[in-house]
Formats: sequence, structure tokens, C-alpha cells
Amino acid sequence: MVSAHGETRPKDGVLGRLSGVLEKRGLDDLAATLSALASYAGADLAAVEGELAHLPRSEDLVGLSASHLLVRGGKRLRPLCVALAAKVGTGFGRPALELAVAVELVHNATLLHDDVIDQGALRRGAPTSRMLYGNAASVYAGDWLLVEALRRVVRAGVPGLLESLLTTIDEMIAGEAIQLERRGKLVADPGAYFQIIEKKTASLFRYAMAAGARAGGLGTNETRALEAYGRHLGLAFQLIDDALDLSGETESTGKALFTDLREGKLTYPLLVGLERDPDLHGMVQEALAREEEPLPAGLGARIQRALNESGALPATTRLAEQHVAEARAALAAVPDGPARAALLQVAEAAVHRRA
Amino acid sequence: MVSAHGETRPKDGVLGRLSGVLEKRGLDDLAATLSALASYAGADLAAVEGELAHLPRSEDLVGLSASHLLVRGGKRLRPLCVALAAKVGTGFGRPALELAVAVELVHNATLLHDDVIDQGALRRGAPTSRMLYGNAASVYAGDWLLVEALRRVVRAGVPGLLESLLTTIDEMIAGEAIQLERRGKLVADPGAYFQIIEKKTASLFRYAMAAGARAGGLGTNETRALEAYGRHLGLAFQLIDDALDLSGETESTGKALFTDLREGKLTYPLLVGLERDPDLHGMVQEALAREEEPLPAGLGARIQRALNESGALPATTRLAEQHVAEARAALAAVPDGPARAALLQVAEAAVHRRA
Repeated sequence: MVSAHGETRPKDGVLGRLSGVLEKRGLDDLAATLSALASYAGADLAAVEGELAHLPRSEDLVGLSASHLLVRGGKRLRPLCVALAAKVGTGFGRPALELAVAVELVHNATLLHDDVIDQGALRRGAPTSRMLYGNAASVYAGDWLLVEALRRVVRAGVPGLLESLLTTIDEMIAGEAIQLERRGKLVADPGAYFQIIEKKTASLFRYAMAAGARAGGLGTNETRALEAYGRHLGLAFQLIDDALDLSGETESTGKALFTDLREGKLTYPLLVGLERDPDLHGMVQEALAREEEPLPAGLGARIQRALNESGALPATTRLAEQHVAEARAALAAVPDGPARAALLQVAEAAVHRRA
Repeated sequence: MVSAHGETRPKDGVLGRLSGVLEKRGLDDLAATLSALASYAGADLAAVEGELAHLPRSEDLVGLSASHLLVRGGKRLRPLCVALAAKVGTGFGRPALELAVAVELVHNATLLHDDVIDQGALRRGAPTSRMLYGNAASVYAGDWLLVEALRRVVRAGVPGLLESLLTTIDEMIAGEAIQLERRGKLVADPGAYFQIIEKKTASLFRYAMAAGARAGGLGTNETRALEAYGRHLGLAFQLIDDALDLSGETESTGKALFTDLREGKLTYPLLVGLERDPDLHGMVQEALAREEEPLPAGLGARIQRALNESGALPATTRLAEQHVAEARAALAAVPDGPARAALLQVAEAAVHRRA
């Protein structure tokens, strides 16, 4: 087991941070369980960090661009999914480690390309790679991370997982393509919205769970159950991301408020708000028309008020909670034990977060 | 054999076009051999075109961006390499077809990303994909073509070829990275120049030959010989590309003259010219300073004259011819037959071209 070579740092990494957030909110029971979880999967995540910190790439612009983003952390939720799914089975061995690193690399590849496309300036609380090393380096760095991810999946040697990762990336691109087509169109189209988040977000969570399950030697039924868990977790995660764009704090999210909104992306609260409040359309159009300029005083606050008063933000949290409930329900088909318990807690933490 | 399902169009495709070019130049012997070659590999290339014209992607912006570039043709030299290498062995079957399509997709993926990075406006005689469908669609389209290429290599099922394609793409990115670092630095550094063209261009030709050889069931020695052929062909091809940037005609290359030069890329004629003519440095800097604006009257002509009078352009053609000779020599280890004869002719045609 790789775990044996890592170290346990209860307050570090995703679990430590999540437990910190939850403590602030006074959810002490959950914070306590997450601390327990950190000692359960912490060594596995430390091994993932170790790999991410030592990618085989020289110190050129492309390498710097790739590692700038990677070493700034991130929640590492996708590697955690691989680790916990593997631990439902025979455990987190070398193949699972390769797969855990691979899903994080794919995720970071999409972030690099997204930042180029969206001309993003801030990510994880720091200037984006493209601001530091240029768009060219970021495009190639994203390409390289994809290649490196695929090499690791080949190395893991678990049958079928390379093909399904290629299918997953294909789906993620299809999701981005739909989002691109709809950008700036302020039409509340729930069908398109759910297609986008299934493809661009849920698919990689689903893959992470399936990959971990297969690496852990699980059979078809359990793998399917864990995939369903991953899908619902991913949907819940994206819904909360959507809500944080409109109600979060830059300080904790590391991303400017209203970023999605100003890029003309249709998020769930916006979709519900547009359906319920006829005045919201004009306000958002005003925000879109500003392009790079700061929003006029009060406009952001007016949009937030409209989203709260129409119930759009609470509806988003509610839907996320429903997906968390479905994620938990999917685990009924999975044998009881510490890994399953951890997955139940991760699902809970995915909605109760500020970043 | 796939060939049986294709059709033979002697004047279409790379061979037809090459033979057309050669006829214009009065190289009738070579033109005649190439016409013969067209009936030898034409059906294989037609099968490749058929696949490229029907990629499994819906008509979204990303799909349009990918196919806009693909359907405008191109020389298809890399698929031709796969086909001829396979035909040295057991022939061009389904796996070789998948591989031939894959190398063309990888090549087009790099073109899409390069155009975004270089803000290219013209490619293959038409507006670039990014001009028509935007940078975002081009970035995702490049990603998608890579994924589609890898899926085809998986499908081809020839052991080792997926891993070596990932290594090849990694090398291509490394080549682009070095080029990026050196961009705009007018320093004649032959070491860096040859590293760049080995990685960004020769590596995919080498892979194409190795892939075809393996698909055709060839052993290690013959595969190595064909790889060496691919490498030298790629180097010769890039050198001629470099020369065409400074002496070609937009009409036949489909690319504006001085594109590489104005992007600050170190091409071989420029490298030699900078070493030999102290005045060239100032002229090129003047061109670089213009950025988007047209070159001042006479500057382009002055640069061309300097490159000719210093012997930089002739030196480039000469070096390309040496690599062609080495490519041909590598074929000594390959059994005689129509495929080998065709490869000899392709090497010749790679230097005697205008586009």
C-alpha cells in the first residue's frame, strides 16, 4: 500500500481544510468525523501531492505554467474519490495512485485551457498561469498535462480505464462546447444547463469513482453504485460552485465574485432567477455590457438581492442537497466499512463549503 | 485490405498535387513516377480522407472548428508515411488506417493550437479556424482531435503504439516549449534550432513510420530503418518549410510570406543569415517591431536579398537535400519492392515542392 509511505497531516489538505470550514460554522460533529477521515485517507492524499510536486518536466515555460497551478493546491476531491473507491475494495495501491494523479492532471488541464479561453486573471487566490507565463505556455501546459495523465493511466494497467478516460475527456469537451454555444445568451434553458454540468463536471467525478473501484478490484454492481455516487457528487459540487460565484467571498473561493456571470455562463441560480424575476434579465445584461470594467456601484448587490428574494440561491443549495442525498443513497449497494463511511462524509462536506 | 474499398484518383491528393507541381517545374521523370505512386497508394489515402470527412462529432462550434481545418486538405504526408511503411510489410489494413488517421489528427491538433497561440489568420489558403469560430472553439477542437487520435490508436490495438504516441506528443510539446522560450531572440543558436525541429516536426514523422511498420508486422531492424527514414524526411520537410516562409508564394503555400519571421521564430535560413550578414539583424528587428502592421515597402525584399546573397537560402535547401539523401540511405535496410520505391520518391518530392 502506498499509504504506508506517506505521512498523516490531520489539518492539511482537503479534509483538514473542510474540517476547518465546518468548525467555523459550528458543525462540530461533522468536523470531528472529517478529522478522523484525514487520518484514514491522509497518507494516500500525501502520496498524490508528492507525485504532483515532482512531475517529470523541465523548468521551461510550459512546465512552470503547469506546476504553478498544480502546486497551489486545490481541493483534490477527484483524487480523494479515486482513493476512497479503491479503499472500498482492496486498497490504495500503485495503480490507484497513478489514477488519482491522472484525474487531478486532467482537471488541471481543463483549468489551464479554461483560463486561456475565459481570459481568467485569478485562480486559487493567485494570478492564473496565463497571466504569469502567457497564453501560449498555458495552452501547451494543458496539452502536456493531458498527455501525462494518459501515460499514468496506461501505466496503471487496469483494463478499460484508458478507453473510458478518453470517452470522459471527449464528454468534458462536449460540455464545454455546449457552454460555449450558449455563452451570453440569457435564456433559462434547464435542458442545456444540466447537459453542460453532467458533461463538464459530473463525468470526471464519475470516472474517478469507477477508476478507483476497478483498481480496487470491485465488481460491476459495486462499480456502478460508486459511479452513481460520483455523478451525484459532481452535480452537487457544480451547483455549489454556481452558488459561490454569486454569493461567495473572493477571499475563501480564490476567484472573483460574479466571474461566471460576467462571462455569460448560465449557472443554476441565474437560470432559476431569470425564470422567476423579470427584472433580473436587465440587470445581468447591464453587467455583461460592462465587459472588463468594474460593475457599477450597487449592481452586484441588486443582483444578489434578486437571486435571494426570488429564492434562486436557496433553490440551488436545495438541489445540491438532493444530489448529495442521492449520492449517499447510491452507497447502499456498497459494503459497509471505513471507506464507505468516508464517502458519506465527503458528500456532506461537498455542499457545506465556502470554497 | 482497405484499399479495395477506396477509389483511385490519380490527380487528387498529395501525390496528384506533388506531381502537378513537378510537372510545372519540368521534372517530368519524377512527375511520372509520382503518378504511378498515386495509383499504388491512392486508394489508401482515399480511405484516410473518407475517415477524416466523417469524424464522429456533432455540428457544434468545436466540431466545425476541427473539421474546417481537416477538410481543407493538407499534404497528408504523415498518413502517407503510415501507409507506405505498412505496405513495406503485410499491407494497409484496418489498424494501419486507424493509425494513418490518428497521425493526421495529431498534426491538425497542433495546427489548431499553434494558430491560437500565434494568432494566425491564414492557413491552407483560407481563414484559420480561430478566425471563423473563435479561439475557444479552436483550443477545445485541438483537445478533441488529440483525444480522437488516441482513441484510434487504442482501437488499432498494436502493442506499444499508444505509449509511443504519448511520448511523441510529449516531445512535440517540448519542442514548442523551447521555441516559445526563444521567440523573438535573434540569436543564431543551431543547437536550439535542431532540438526544436527534431521534437516538433521530425518526431511525428518518425512515429508515423514506426506505427506503419508495426502495423505491417515488420521486425525491429526494418522498423528502425523506417523510423530513421521518417526522422530525416521530417527534418528535410521542416527545412523546406523554413525556406518557403522566406521565399515562397502565398498563393501556393496558403500562408502569408514572413509569417515565422514576424512571429520571431528562428528558422534555418535566418540562423545562417544572422551568422553571415551583420546587417540582417537590424532588418529583422525592424520587421519584428512592426507587429501587426504591414512591412514597410522594400524591407521584405531587402531581407530576401540578404538571405540569398549570404547563401542562407541555398544552404537551407542543401541541408534539406542531405537529409533526403540520408532518408534514402536508411531504406537500404528495407526489402526492395513498390513500397520502398514509393518512399524513395516521397523523399525526393519533399524537397522539390512549393507548398
